[in-house]
Amino acid sequence: MKFFEDIATGERAELGSRTFTAPDIKAFAGRFDPQAFHLDEEAARRSYFGGLCASGWHTASVWMRLMVDHVRREDEARAARGERVAALGPSPGFRDLKWLKPVYAGDTISYATEVADKRVSASRPGWGLVTFRNSGVNQNGETVISFTSVAFVQRREGGA
Amino acid sequence: MKFFEDIATGERAELGSRTFTAPDIKAFAGRFDPQAFHLDEEAARRSYFGGLCASGWHTASVWMRLMVDHVRREDEARAARGERVAALGPSPGFRDLKWLKPVYAGDTISYATEVADKRVSASRPGWGLVTFRNSGVNQNGETVISFTSVAFVQRREGGA
Repeated sequence: MKFFEDIATGERAELGSRTFTAPDIKAFAGRFDPQAFHLDEEAARRSYFGGLCASGWHTASVWMRLMVDHVRREDEARAARGERVAALGPSPGFRDLKWLKPVYAGDTISYATEVADKRVSASRPGWGLVTFRNSGVNQNGETVISFTSVAFVQRREGGA
Repeated sequence: MKFFEDIATGERAELGSRTFTAPDIKAFAGRFDPQAFHLDEEAARRSYFGGLCASGWHTASVWMRLMVDHVRREDEARAARGERVAALGPSPGFRDLKWLKPVYAGDTISYATEVADKRVSASRPGWGLVTFRNSGVNQNGETVISFTSVAFVQRREGGA
């Protein structure tokens, strides 16, 4: 992770994309969201969704995976350049998660994150709090998920 | 699901509990949140969490599972009594998800949901919108997760 001081409000990162296959959708739903429209093509066709679609928690969890992979790639590049790497701390939570469109089997969702705000943490010396605006967009350019997350990021000065 | 008309603000349901085992925590994290403190006991001990703990998305996804199981049990009981069962529609999203405490390997989280608000949907005839306040509490009585969700619920009159 960049240090808190090096993060600029407005900066945006593309996190990569993921195609939601029918087996992936059913595997997640079987464990965490066993509703018929996430498990069975025929039942999904008859539902208000009109086709097999991913659990919203699946769509959100894939954002987390791509975010972790993105931070790791960036950290490896930083380490290779001999730069110090900041720790990404715990997340207190997120706000305003919206599932705006269904994610159907075969859809490819491209995720991005943008820095909406940053401030020094009052409760944890050595850390800052960064607010990210996150989104996933399908292959037709439609936003399917958006939410605002907050995470602790290590400060360069007065480190953890 | 109960019909929209039969849901009362303030009513609460216990959704059941789940013990987060180390293998479960690692399996979820391996797919969706591969950070060291969710994957490896030794690395977790050295982290700010101090021990292996579940991805927040895992804690949230288990709420979804227990909610779906709860609604299914209730619907089966309704059907057995010869009552009509209302459809639970799509969820537009969530607000104010807070991960208040880590969920460590071996912790047992008890989930509950409470009706915070309800209103007739302006955009979807035959449906109402119900706001739920959801929580998960560990075996020490500490709330580890809380969030507010909204879901469409079928109305008895003018049904979908």
